[in-house]
Amino acid sequence: MKKYNVAIVGATGAVGSEMLRCVLEFNFPYESIKLLASARSAGKTISQNGIDFVVEELTADSFEGIDVAFWSAGGSISEKYMDAAVKAGCVNIDNSSHFRMDPNVPLVVPEVNSEALRDHKGIIANPNCTTIMMCSAVNRIEEVFGIEKITVSTYQAVSGAGVAAMDELYAQSRDVLDGKEPIAKVLPSGGDKKHYPIAFNCIPQVDVFNLENGYSKEEMKMVNETKKIFGKDIKVNATCVRVPVLRGHSESIHIQTKKPLDMPLVFEVLANSTGVHLYDDLANQIYPMPTAFIGDEMVHVGRVRQDLFSDHGLNMWAVSDQLMKGAAYNSIDIGLKMIEMGIL
Amino acid sequence: MKKYNVAIVGATGAVGSEMLRCVLEFNFPYESIKLLASARSAGKTISQNGIDFVVEELTADSFEGIDVAFWSAGGSISEKYMDAAVKAGCVNIDNSSHFRMDPNVPLVVPEVNSEALRDHKGIIANPNCTTIMMCSAVNRIEEVFGIEKITVSTYQAVSGAGVAAMDELYAQSRDVLDGKEPIAKVLPSGGDKKHYPIAFNCIPQVDVFNLENGYSKEEMKMVNETKKIFGKDIKVNATCVRVPVLRGHSESIHIQTKKPLDMPLVFEVLANSTGVHLYDDLANQIYPMPTAFIGDEMVHVGRVRQDLFSDHGLNMWAVSDQLMKGAAYNSIDIGLKMIEMGIL
Repeated sequence: MKKYNVAIVGATGAVGSEMLRCVLEFNFPYESIKLLASARSAGKTISQNGIDFVVEELTADSFEGIDVAFWSAGGSISEKYMDAAVKAGCVNIDNSSHFRMDPNVPLVVPEVNSEALRDHKGIIANPNCTTIMMCSAVNRIEEVFGIEKITVSTYQAVSGAGVAAMDELYAQSRDVLDGKEPIAKVLPSGGDKKHYPIAFNCIPQVDVFNLENGYSKEEMKMVNETKKIFGKDIKVNATCVRVPVLRGHSESIHIQTKKPLDMPLVFEVLANSTGVHLYDDLANQIYPMPTAFIGDEMVHVGRVRQDLFSDHGLNMWAVSDQLMKGAAYNSIDIGLKMIEMGIL
Repeated sequence: MKKYNVAIVGATGAVGSEMLRCVLEFNFPYESIKLLASARSAGKTISQNGIDFVVEELTADSFEGIDVAFWSAGGSISEKYMDAAVKAGCVNIDNSSHFRMDPNVPLVVPEVNSEALRDHKGIIANPNCTTIMMCSAVNRIEEVFGIEKITVSTYQAVSGAGVAAMDELYAQSRDVLDGKEPIAKVLPSGGDKKHYPIAFNCIPQVDVFNLENGYSKEEMKMVNETKKIFGKDIKVNATCVRVPVLRGHSESIHIQTKKPLDMPLVFEVLANSTGVHLYDDLANQIYPMPTAFIGDEMVHVGRVRQDLFSDHGLNMWAVSDQLMKGAAYNSIDIGLKMIEMGIL
């Protein structure tokens, strides 16, 4: 079996660390692993699964001899160095939003649209975390019943805003418990003007707003990326909210189907849906919660029930580790799927 | 102006304490205030606004000479003592769920259906917290555009489960920060078998489940109480979720209207809606958050925007202090409204 020279770009970040763990634990067939980050982190040693890795500085020359690179260093880094990586013959799986809506770049959730991978030109985009988990959760419902529209409200962990936001949640929580004023420097969005504490709070802003239509960039990612992934005109009505949770995203999903629902079939379909763990037993209070699945790669689905007022309406509650299925795991899984398909 | 002999039943609880504060701060015209609770709390002194009150034991004789009683001691206490209170000629405003769906008992959000108060037979029910704030938020939208259906996902504070749940959130949060295992004894529902930590978590269960239809009791309260309050067949599709917030409930509300929306009119209507504070200015990152309005009696509404795929679809985000508009304030406001209407 072929072995690959792998690079991880942004290896010191919250997602980058999980990418390294995923390469090792999900048996990505690597020959070598090169960890890349900014000059500031170069020389730093990272230990994972008993192996020590030394971080190297990311430059335009970093990709010589690299077969596949997993990127999670932000859109501006992807923009700056991607050309050099593609020219070096490296296949790039990018977790930033930079290339996602580029018509020449496949946007992939492996269990949903892996065939799109065949069209890649050196770059594959990993969708936004909230989109990945929703698309994975509803994929087989779309196949069997057809989806007209999704109305979704998210309960997003702070990990989506990186290590600084995770540190901020804990520091603020301690301040509140100690009767001090919590200090906000990161959330709701590093790129916006005002910052609000997330500890013991909910912030109905994830990323910046589009002032013309009133939706946040995160909400528009769910709208646009879902259409591209399914290649269908599925309507998504999204409200994205940050909650004081460390790294598990939750979503309250209402699906309006094209065909009338058959609930026994819905449960059967979800129980046999790739990447989905149906975790739903109300009599025993079994439903997914974000703290229950940290480090896990699946999308956990529960509270599955028919809309009381429509036989075309289905409610579900989905939970997934934002850093895993929402980012690192989906990226590595794209690489594994490409190997399986014989295109890497 | 007439002055009233007032009783507060369950005065030592989270809601009862706020009822006392509301009577004092919203100028309920009282002659006397009697605080009632279980024998265990009798004799305890409660200080509020510089006045000391001594708690008395609740018995069937407690209501002699009382004009109006505000109840928040749970359904079983309301059931046990209500007859005696009604027979004593006391008008009772009950925050428990016990009488809410009784056709002989008005269920009232003053700004929505105060006329129903005229039919009271000694008992008026205060709706569930999540229902009150939603009905208040959407009331003028219903009047102007008509509401066909509401799809709502809640982000509920722990205060809805009482003082013990509030203590539990803080104790668990400290345990997690200190690297200890958090201990759960109260949430998601005192009446259910299993308990899960709420700190840094989301629990998609509020109250017990109806195993036949898959909805929680809290969700069914939103379905049934909304219909009764509006006296109309408004369809409510609800998902109720507990989040690690102390006492501010939030709701992500999608409204399907009967008439097509006119967004300038929507904003005008919300800005002039009794009990509602339109707090919505995206350019300045202005939107309601639960920590911002603790102790406040309004329903704060923001993120108001049209559904991208329907001119009959409206999204909004509503926040209100669960203990205030969700319980204590609405109860006192019912009493004030009855005085204004000349029926108390």
